[in-house]
Amino acid sequence: MNTRKIAVVITARPSYSRVKSLLQAIKEHPQLELQLIIAASALLDRYGSAVNFIEKDGFTIAAKVFNVLEGENLTAAAKTTGIGILELSSVFDNMRPDIVVTVADRFETMATAVSASYMNIPLAHIQGGEVTGNIDEKVRHSITKLSDYHFVASESARERVLKLGENPEMVFNTGCPSIDLANEVIQYNGLTFDPYQKYGGVGRQPDLSNGYLVVMQHPVTNEYQDSRRHIEETLKAVAQLDIPCLWFWPNVDAGADGTSTGIRSFREKNQLDNVHFFKNMDGMDFLNLLQNSKGLIGNSSVGIRECAFMGVPVINIGSRQNKRDRGHNVIDVRYDQQEIAQAIQTIISQPRPASSAVYGGGDAGKKIADALATVPLQFHKTIMY
Amino acid sequence: MNTRKIAVVITARPSYSRVKSLLQAIKEHPQLELQLIIAASALLDRYGSAVNFIEKDGFTIAAKVFNVLEGENLTAAAKTTGIGILELSSVFDNMRPDIVVTVADRFETMATAVSASYMNIPLAHIQGGEVTGNIDEKVRHSITKLSDYHFVASESARERVLKLGENPEMVFNTGCPSIDLANEVIQYNGLTFDPYQKYGGVGRQPDLSNGYLVVMQHPVTNEYQDSRRHIEETLKAVAQLDIPCLWFWPNVDAGADGTSTGIRSFREKNQLDNVHFFKNMDGMDFLNLLQNSKGLIGNSSVGIRECAFMGVPVINIGSRQNKRDRGHNVIDVRYDQQEIAQAIQTIISQPRPASSAVYGGGDAGKKIADALATVPLQFHKTIMY
Amino acid sequence: MNTRKIAVVITARPSYSRVKSLLQAIKEHPQLELQLIIAASALLDRYGSAVNFIEKDGFTIAAKVFNVLEGENLTAAAKTTGIGILELSSVFDNMRPDIVVTVADRFETMATAVSASYMNIPLAHIQGGEVTGNIDEKVRHSITKLSDYHFVASESARERVLKLGENPEMVFNTGCPSIDLANEVIQYNGLTFDPYQKYGGVGRQPDLSNGYLVVMQHPVTNEYQDSRRHIEETLKAVAQLDIPCLWFWPNVDAGADGTSTGIRSFREKNQLDNVHFFKNMDGMDFLNLLQNSKGLIGNSSVGIRECAFMGVPVINIGSRQNKRDRGHNVIDVRYDQQEIAQAIQTIISQPRPASSAVYGGGDAGKKIADALATVPLQFHKTIMY
Amino acid sequence: MNTRKIAVVITARPSYSRVKSLLQAIKEHPQLELQLIIAASALLDRYGSAVNFIEKDGFTIAAKVFNVLEGENLTAAAKTTGIGILELSSVFDNMRPDIVVTVADRFETMATAVSASYMNIPLAHIQGGEVTGNIDEKVRHSITKLSDYHFVASESARERVLKLGENPEMVFNTGCPSIDLANEVIQYNGLTFDPYQKYGGVGRQPDLSNGYLVVMQHPVTNEYQDSRRHIEETLKAVAQLDIPCLWFWPNVDAGADGTSTGIRSFREKNQLDNVHFFKNMDGMDFLNLLQNSKGLIGNSSVGIRECAFMGVPVINIGSRQNKRDRGHNVIDVRYDQQEIAQAIQTIISQPRPASSAVYGGGDAGKKIADALATVPLQFHKTIMY
Repeated sequence: MNTRKIAVVITARPSYSRVKSLLQAIKEHPQLELQLIIAASALLDRYGSAVNFIEKDGFTIAAKVFNVLEGENLTAAAKTTGIGILELSSVFDNMRPDIVVTVADRFETMATAVSASYMNIPLAHIQGGEVTGNIDEKVRHSITKLSDYHFVASESARERVLKLGENPEMVFNTGCPSIDLANEVIQYNGLTFDPYQKYGGVGRQPDLSNGYLVVMQHPVTNEYQDSRRHIEETLKAVAQLDIPCLWFWPNVDAGADGTSTGIRSFREKNQLDNVHFFKNMDGMDFLNLLQNSKGLIGNSSVGIRECAFMGVPVINIGSRQNKRDRGHNVIDVRYDQQEIAQAIQTIISQPRPASSAVYGGGDAGKKIADALATVPLQFHKTIMY
Repeated sequence: MNTRKIAVVITARPSYSRVKSLLQAIKEHPQLELQLIIAASALLDRYGSAVNFIEKDGFTIAAKVFNVLEGENLTAAAKTTGIGILELSSVFDNMRPDIVVTVADRFETMATAVSASYMNIPLAHIQGGEVTGNIDEKVRHSITKLSDYHFVASESARERVLKLGENPEMVFNTGCPSIDLANEVIQYNGLTFDPYQKYGGVGRQPDLSNGYLVVMQHPVTNEYQDSRRHIEETLKAVAQLDIPCLWFWPNVDAGADGTSTGIRSFREKNQLDNVHFFKNMDGMDFLNLLQNSKGLIGNSSVGIRECAFMGVPVINIGSRQNKRDRGHNVIDVRYDQQEIAQAIQTIISQPRPASSAVYGGGDAGKKIADALATVPLQFHKTIMY
Repeated sequence: MNTRKIAVVITARPSYSRVKSLLQAIKEHPQLELQLIIAASALLDRYGSAVNFIEKDGFTIAAKVFNVLEGENLTAAAKTTGIGILELSSVFDNMRPDIVVTVADRFETMATAVSASYMNIPLAHIQGGEVTGNIDEKVRHSITKLSDYHFVASESARERVLKLGENPEMVFNTGCPSIDLANEVIQYNGLTFDPYQKYGGVGRQPDLSNGYLVVMQHPVTNEYQDSRRHIEETLKAVAQLDIPCLWFWPNVDAGADGTSTGIRSFREKNQLDNVHFFKNMDGMDFLNLLQNSKGLIGNSSVGIRECAFMGVPVINIGSRQNKRDRGHNVIDVRYDQQEIAQAIQTIISQPRPASSAVYGGGDAGKKIADALATVPLQFHKTIMY
Repeated sequence: MNTRKIAVVITARPSYSRVKSLLQAIKEHPQLELQLIIAASALLDRYGSAVNFIEKDGFTIAAKVFNVLEGENLTAAAKTTGIGILELSSVFDNMRPDIVVTVADRFETMATAVSASYMNIPLAHIQGGEVTGNIDEKVRHSITKLSDYHFVASESARERVLKLGENPEMVFNTGCPSIDLANEVIQYNGLTFDPYQKYGGVGRQPDLSNGYLVVMQHPVTNEYQDSRRHIEETLKAVAQLDIPCLWFWPNVDAGADGTSTGIRSFREKNQLDNVHFFKNMDGMDFLNLLQNSKGLIGNSSVGIRECAFMGVPVINIGSRQNKRDRGHNVIDVRYDQQEIAQAIQTIISQPRPASSAVYGGGDAGKKIADALATVPLQFHKTIMY
C-alpha cells in the first residue's frame, strides 16, 4: 500500500490549536505523509503569526498562501476567499495530495473546500454538523455538502451530518482533536509559565496567585455593526471586578474593527487596573492558563469544548455558540453588563463543574489519522435521499 | 414599499433559457427592479454567446463579468470560480442588490453564492434539491446551504431541500421556469423557422419534413477522461440511421475537449450524411425544434424537464440526469451504441407520450417574482434540526 | 466639443495631497468630468484613511478598489499590483474614461498604467522623469514608457522624459501640483490649528510656541531589511534634542514593518519627552505645520518639493530623494546619528532659506487640467529615436 | 562559485522558438540551472500547445501557469496580465531564482517583469530596444526600464537601450537567439519532412516540388478593429496565385478574432485551391520550410530576423515590423491587394538575397548564458542621466 499524501490547510491560529494533535498523528503515521499548508491570517503578524508556533512545534510547512485582502469589510472577506481559491488550486496542482483536509467553518476555509472538490481531490472536513446560527453555519454545512469524509466532534453533530444526506460510512464521530491537547494539559500541575514574562502584552500585571479570570470575545460576523456595543458590555462588567482578568485580542473577521476599537477606546477612557491584554498565546499554554483559572468569559468555542472536558466554568456571551452541545460547565448570558456581572459572581462562588466527554475522549487526532489512511479514495457522491 | 433590486447572474446559455420567463416577470413586476449580470461562458463566442440572445430579447445588461480561465482542466474550473468571486463581489458592492438570484448547479455559480452570502446579501437559489450524482450535485446542495430562499422545480426536490434542514417557509415549489417557455411553444403550429437558414451550422442538410431527431450530449464532469468514448457510442448509433439528426455542440466544462475532439475526429473519418451540427440556438427556437421532433437523444436536462411537459420522447444516456424526476417520456440507456440504437427504434415506432406537470405548470417565473417581492429580506438562518 | 471623462486613480495619502489642486481644477473645468477612483492604502485605516479626507474635501468617489494583499513582504506587493490590474480593468471597462491619470511612482500605480495602456485608453502620468535610484525609479520610468502624456514637475524632469524618447509635444513642465497647495498655505498667518487637539496622536505634548521640528521618514523599498537600523539613527538623534519634535508614521511599503517596529521598540525602551507621534494629518494642515516649523527631518519628498517653495529648511536622510532637484533649503545626510544631530544644529541656528520655484509656481493643477482638455486623444506612440 | 538558478518564462509559441538555443545553453552551462516556466497561450491547444514541443525537445518544465482569461478583448488582455502577476509571484516565491529572464514584448510578458522586479529578483530582458510603433513597443520599452540586464539583438537596438538611460555595462548585443536555430537549419539539404503528412492542417494539398510561398500574418493590437479588412487584402492577393501557399494561423492577441473570422469567412465563400492551412509547426521545421520556400508573406518578425540571416525574400505587410532593422531581403508593402500581388511577382522573379548578420551570427544563446553566469547579481539601478 502506498503512502497517502494528506494536505491540511490551516488558515487561523485557533484552527491550528484545534488540529495540532491530528497533524502530529498524520506526521507519525507510517502510511501518511503530511503536506501542511498555512494560509490567511495564520501567516500575519497582527493575528498572532500562528505560523511561528507551527514551526516551533516542529512541523514542516509545504506552502504558504497569502490571501488576506485588506479592508475589514464583507467584500474583502469574499475577495479573500476568491484569492484563496486561485492560490490553493495552484498549490494542490503542484502537490497532488490524495486527500485534502479542511477545518471547521471560518469563511476562508470555503476556498480550500471549493478548490479540492472542483479538482476532484477527496475532501475531509473536521467539525461538521455543528450549529451556531450565523454565517459560520452557512459555511460549515455548505462545506459538508462539498466533502467526502466527515470527522465530527459530538454525537449530535454526527446525527446532523447524516440528516444532511451524507453516507453513514463516511461520517466518523472521533471527538474533537482539540480535546486531545486538553487531555495532555490536565496532567500538568498548576501554571507552567509566567504569562507576563513569556507573552508581554499590555496593561497592569495584577497578581495571579489568588485566582484570575480569562476573557476572549470575538466579533460575530453577521452582527458586525454591533461588535463595539457588545464588547463594551463585557468591558464594563469586567472593569468593576477586583479579580485579575487576562484578556485576549479577537481574531480576524469582518467586525474585528468594531471589537478592537471598542477595547482600545474603553482603555483610553477608563482605568482597567485588574486587566492585562495579550495578543496571542501558544495553544498549550492557553489551555494550561484556562485549567488554572476561575473561569472563562466570552464567546470562544474553547469554552464549550475544551473547558467541558477540563471542567472549567464558562460564561458564554451572546449567539456565537448557540445550539452547540454543552457539558456541565457553561452559563449562557446575553450582551448585558448585569447578566455578565452576576454570572461572574456565580462561577467564582460555586464548586468546579465535573469533566464531560461530550466532545471526545482525547484521542481524536489518532482516530482521524487512522481513518485517513484507510477510507476509500473517492470524490463521487450522491445525497442519501 | 420600496422597489427591490434583484440581481440575477447568468453564467451559461442553458441557464439563460431556464430563467428567461423569470427575468421577464421581474422586469414587469412593479415592486422589482432587474439587475442582470452576464458572466462566464454566457459571454463567449465559442459557447454560443448567450449574451447576444439576451440583448436581442430586450433585456438590459447591468454588468458583464469575464472570468473563464482557459485551460479546460479542473484546476482552471476552480480558478474560474475564484476569479468569479473577485469580480462579482465588486459588482455586488457597486449595485447593492436586495436579493441575489443564482441558477442551478454549474460549477461557476458557486462564485455567485459565495459572494452574495459572504456579503450578507439575501440569496435565492433556483432548482435546488435535485439529484444527479456527480460534481453538479455537490455544488447544488452546497449552494442550498448558502441560500436563504429556495425555488424548487418539483415536489421531490422540495422534500429534499427540507431534509437538508431548510426553513419550510423559505422553500417554494414553483415548478421550473423553463417550463414557462415550453408552455408558450406548444401553442405554435409546426416549425416556425428553417434551422439551416437561420442558424447555419455545418454538415449536410437532410430534409426535415418527414421527421428528425435532436442530439445534445454534454461531458460529465467527474468522468471527463471518458468523455470521448461516451460521445463515440452515440456517434456510432446515430451514424447508422436514415432519419435526419440535428446535433448540438456541448457547453463548456472540464472534459469539453474530450467530447468536442471525439465529434470532430469521428466526422473526419466517417460519413455522417444524416447529421447536421449546430453551435447554438435561441432557446425558444430550440424548444420549437424539439416539440416538432421525433425525440431527443443525449443527456440534457431539457429532455427530463421541458420534454416531459411537451410530451417529447427522450433517450437519456448515462449518469448525468440520474435520479432526477421523470415524466412518462424518458428511456434511460447506458453509453452503449446498441442500447441507444434500440431505444431510437422504440421512440420512432411508438405513439407520443402524454404531457406531465412534474416540473411545473408553466407559471414558475411569475410565482418566483411574486415571492421575491414579498419574502422577508434576511440572510441569517440556522439549520432546522 | 464633448466633455472628456478624466479618471484619476489615487492609491495613497501622499498621492492625494500631491494632486488635490488638479482634482479641483478638473472638477471645475467646463470641458472635463472627474472620475475619481480610490484604491490600495488610501482606503485603509492603518494608513490614515485618505478616503475620509477626500470626501470631506467635497470630492465624489466614483469607485473604490480594495487591492492591498496583507503580508508586508515583496511578494505581497507584486500580488497587490496583480489584483489592482484585475479590479481596475473592470472599473475602466464600466466607466469608459477618455483619459486615465496616474500619479508618481508608488509600486501599485503600475496597475493603473498597465490596465489603461492595455485597454487602449490614453494615459497621463504626473511626475515622471525624476530620479531617486531605487525601485520607485524603475516603476516611474517604466510608467513613462506606457504613458501618452507627461506632466512633469521640473525642467530636469522634462529633459529626462525627452531623453527617454517621448514626443516633446506630449511632455509638459507644469510644475508639481503639490506646490499649488503650498502656494495657498503660505498666505496663512501662523499655525491655524492645535495639532494635539485636532489630531490626537500619542506621546507627551511639548509646548510648540518656541518652535518645533517635524519628522517623517519612510522605509526605502530595496533596503527594507535595513529599515529598522535606519530609523534608529534618526530616533537616537531626535531623542537628544530639547526642541519639540512632531513625528509622522510611515506609509505602507515592504519594509514598513521594520520602520514601525523600530519606532515602537525605541519608544518602549527610551524616554522621548520631546516627541509626539501622529498617524496622519490633512495635507493642508501638514503644510501649515511645516511652514511654521524650524525644519523637516526625514526622507519625504515634501522636503524637496513643497519646502523648497515655502523656504523651510530640510534635513534629507539617506538615498530616497537621491538626484531629485533641490532648492536652497536641503541639507543631505546619511543614516547616521551624528550627521543628523549636526544638521539639526545648523538649521536651528541659521536664517531661513529663500523660496525656490524649481518645482513650479503654484498653478500646476490648472495647467494640467487645461492640457487634459485639449491634448489629442491617442494611445499610439513610438520612441523618438 | 555557486550554481545560479535562471528562471525563464515562456508565454507563447513564437517566444519559445526564439529562445530555444538559449534554453539549451543554460541547461548545458556548468554554472547555471534552468527553471523553465510555461505560461499563457504556450499551454493552450488553440494556440498550438507550445508546451508539447518544449517537452518533446527534452526540457523539464518546472511550473505551468494558466493565466489566459477568455474574452478576446482588451480588458481580458489586461486581466490576463494581472492573473499572471498573481501566479508568477507565487512561483518565484517558491523557486527563488537568482535571475528571471523575460522575452521580447508580448503583453503578458509584463507580468513576468513586474513580478520579478517587485520581488527584487534581478531581471534579464531579451530583445529590448527594438521599434515597432504599437502597443508592443510600449510594453517592450517599459520592460527595459524594469530590467537589470539587456540582451539585445542588433546594434541599433543596443543604441536605443543606451539612450533609454541603461548602464552600458549591462547591455549586451548578443544577436538574437532565434538566429542560432536558423544557423542550424541552413545546414540541411532541402525539405526534411512532408508538411502535409507531419502536420495535417486543412485545405487542398498542392504539390510543393516546384516551389511555394509561406504566409503568416498576425493581427496588430491597436488596430484590432481593422484586423479583418487587413487579412482580406492578403487573402485576395494570395487567392489569385498559381503557386502553392502554406498559411499559418495567427497567435493569440486582442484582434485575433478579426483575423481568424476573416480567414474562415473568406474560405467559405472562395475557392483557395492553392492554399493549405496549418495551425502550428515545430520551430525548426518552420525554418526549414522557409529556407526552402520562394518567400514569406505577412508581418511575422521571422521575416525580418531569421529570413535576413537565411537570405529568404520577405513581403512585409503593414506596420507591425515598422522601424525594425532589416537585411537585404525585405519588401515593405501596405495592406493592399495590388501592392502585395506585385511584390509577390518581384520575389518570384528575382534572385535570392544575400545573407545578413544584422540580427547576429548564430551564437546568441551561448553568449547570453555566459553573461547570465557572470553578471553581478543586482536589482538596484538608476537612470544614467
